[in-house]
Amino acid sequence: MISEVRQKAMLAQDAAAIMNRLTTEQKNTALIHMADALITEQQAIISANELDLQRGREQGTSPSLLDRLALNGDRVAAIAEGLRQIVELPDPVGQLLEHFDRPNGLKIEKVRVPLGVIGMIYEARPNVTVDAAGLCLKTGNSVVLRGGSAAIESNRKIVEILKKALGATAMPADAIQLIEDSDRASVNEMLKLNGLLDVVIPRGGASLIRNVVENATVPVIETGAGICHTYVDAGANYQMAADIAFNAKVQRPSVCNSMETLLVHETFADRHLAELAERFIQAGVELRGCERTIALLAEAKPATEEDYGTEYSDYIMNIRIVPHLDAALEHIHRFGTKHSECIVTENAQHAERFIQEVDAAAVYHNASTRFTDGFEFGFGAEIGISTQKLHARGPMGLPALTSTKFRIFGNGQIRG
Amino acid sequence: MISEVRQKAMLAQDAAAIMNRLTTEQKNTALIHMADALITEQQAIISANELDLQRGREQGTSPSLLDRLALNGDRVAAIAEGLRQIVELPDPVGQLLEHFDRPNGLKIEKVRVPLGVIGMIYEARPNVTVDAAGLCLKTGNSVVLRGGSAAIESNRKIVEILKKALGATAMPADAIQLIEDSDRASVNEMLKLNGLLDVVIPRGGASLIRNVVENATVPVIETGAGICHTYVDAGANYQMAADIAFNAKVQRPSVCNSMETLLVHETFADRHLAELAERFIQAGVELRGCERTIALLAEAKPATEEDYGTEYSDYIMNIRIVPHLDAALEHIHRFGTKHSECIVTENAQHAERFIQEVDAAAVYHNASTRFTDGFEFGFGAEIGISTQKLHARGPMGLPALTSTKFRIFGNGQIRG
Repeated sequence: MISEVRQKAMLAQDAAAIMNRLTTEQKNTALIHMADALITEQQAIISANELDLQRGREQGTSPSLLDRLALNGDRVAAIAEGLRQIVELPDPVGQLLEHFDRPNGLKIEKVRVPLGVIGMIYEARPNVTVDAAGLCLKTGNSVVLRGGSAAIESNRKIVEILKKALGATAMPADAIQLIEDSDRASVNEMLKLNGLLDVVIPRGGASLIRNVVENATVPVIETGAGICHTYVDAGANYQMAADIAFNAKVQRPSVCNSMETLLVHETFADRHLAELAERFIQAGVELRGCERTIALLAEAKPATEEDYGTEYSDYIMNIRIVPHLDAALEHIHRFGTKHSECIVTENAQHAERFIQEVDAAAVYHNASTRFTDGFEFGFGAEIGISTQKLHARGPMGLPALTSTKFRIFGNGQIRG
Repeated sequence: MISEVRQKAMLAQDAAAIMNRLTTEQKNTALIHMADALITEQQAIISANELDLQRGREQGTSPSLLDRLALNGDRVAAIAEGLRQIVELPDPVGQLLEHFDRPNGLKIEKVRVPLGVIGMIYEARPNVTVDAAGLCLKTGNSVVLRGGSAAIESNRKIVEILKKALGATAMPADAIQLIEDSDRASVNEMLKLNGLLDVVIPRGGASLIRNVVENATVPVIETGAGICHTYVDAGANYQMAADIAFNAKVQRPSVCNSMETLLVHETFADRHLAELAERFIQAGVELRGCERTIALLAEAKPATEEDYGTEYSDYIMNIRIVPHLDAALEHIHRFGTKHSECIVTENAQHAERFIQEVDAAAVYHNASTRFTDGFEFGFGAEIGISTQKLHARGPMGLPALTSTKFRIFGNGQIRG
């Protein structure tokens, strides 16, 4: 018997052929219908969500996870508004990227096309269901959604409403598929669906992403983990350095572009570290430091090698005092996850070396790593932040959900 | 104890940090030194190659495989010349792809950077050792080579010469690593080296590629398999259709962009198929056909479903008569491998539909599928033809061996 996963992926693939032919206007109309339906049917969504919340409470789910799962009128409105924002974005599909005429008369064009069928694997956040669907459909793809089982009632109702909304449009309802099987095996089956899924994108915590990367044979766009550093050079402007480091750590510690380790040049540390540390301590940040840091700061605990390799995502940070730029580069090379790295310096040559030599998706001179974000970069969307080097790196806009095709026009050319 | 594979990958990664800083001129100088050394040391290479050939003959290796393995003065000269051609190509590294200023004053640049460390897994073809190294080094990457064990003596000597040639240049010799362990386990270890290898590129036959795709957790650029079709529409120009189909099948049947199945509209078939088939038969092509084809051509054997799904890479082809364009599209959707597909037609609307609706790396109107090739497209290099949709699709030029990095310049910006 054919499994749910395979069957739905096949339906999505059939729908992808139709998706590929839709105009931008047809796709936008479909997204608007979807947004309208979410508002009209919000009570049904909230009721379904209540079932998930109730089950979660019975199972002792933590308050923070319940909060991520919970929907209310405002949140549904925000989700619908997110779809409308996707409507406003330019459609990358059909964009002519290159064209060249060959001496034999062949005219070759490279154009953007949809990827085909995208598998999204994520946690118990019903907003991701709508957001992922909107981004994939806008770019002419079908999507197979596999959200966390703790949100299954919410997701089932949302997808039912979205599919129904497509009934009145040119977009095939089969372009959205929800995997309802809550067994982990359904995720692992998705990861091996070569030939049916063109890509799998995991969105969620480190263990979810690791499982996808380790088990997928389908191509993956890896997102997520960020151990980000701020290096404060000798002679950095104190106020600027303090503001950038504080922002990178404290403004939102739970996200991947926040800072985990502050690297400080020894001359800056001697002059300013005590004052700087005080600001973090006041904000409730736990400090862990190298030996020299501990000698300067009574409040700091010793930082271990493991600490330097940990993404805290919390009000905890490491401080390490380094004798020169090279030591900072070496630390980042060793412990960084190639996400976002920053140097604060007034030394142009040091800035240039840092920008050139640090291997990361986003490298900053005198600005907070917190800017690594699709919206902050002006892409108008946030599919995720790619931490791999193939296909897309760093914040991904809609083009990351497309592939390309060569169109070749001849008049009888054959190869000699 | 640390394995050979891991140790060499670590050396390659350390070298990648230096590779990333080299100028185009430094890289080109290194490639020229490599080319010169191959010529100077050609006797040593040919002697080492003789050891491989001798072992191959003793083990009963087929003449065609021995031919692929064999080196002589002319072949070494051609390999060295290939390196010199790579020198002439523009260096994609450092290219500014996008730049935008944000309202908060941040200046954001997206530039091409090396991928880092590339793993190449290939068969017993010593020319690939040099070609792959040349392409990877030109783009500022380190390369870990794992060629077929039947070429190990040749590869060991070649890599020794290349590394020695780098001694007099700015390029680190450790940027080239050869895995000498002939056990299959060394391949499988490479495929799991996340964090050390940034990408693995398989070059070779279907089973080699399948093993890589199925077992790699490192990102892969899949190349290879091609079941390509030519569809001859009703009212196609006979001579053009015959020339294109004949070229697509016969000019070089062993390669991935050659045709496996000819789809013919029924009205064209009724008028021209017998004449067209005669040309293939004269060229020694075995014909397998659908029922209607068999009724028209006494020489054709019945084609099975399996035949339609087979990449013959040989003087064998399927012929299927279809009632309309949609049936041709459906056949291609079902049996194609999304490599190269062609329509021969005088009907502009049909051409447009075919080009738009066929999901393949390269879609042709009135030209042979044999043109899907980096050199024919004018890229000046042939890393392979990607049959996946992420990162690169179709013939890959040097940019396919690069990633990107965002460089962000601020003056104290923090996120609010």
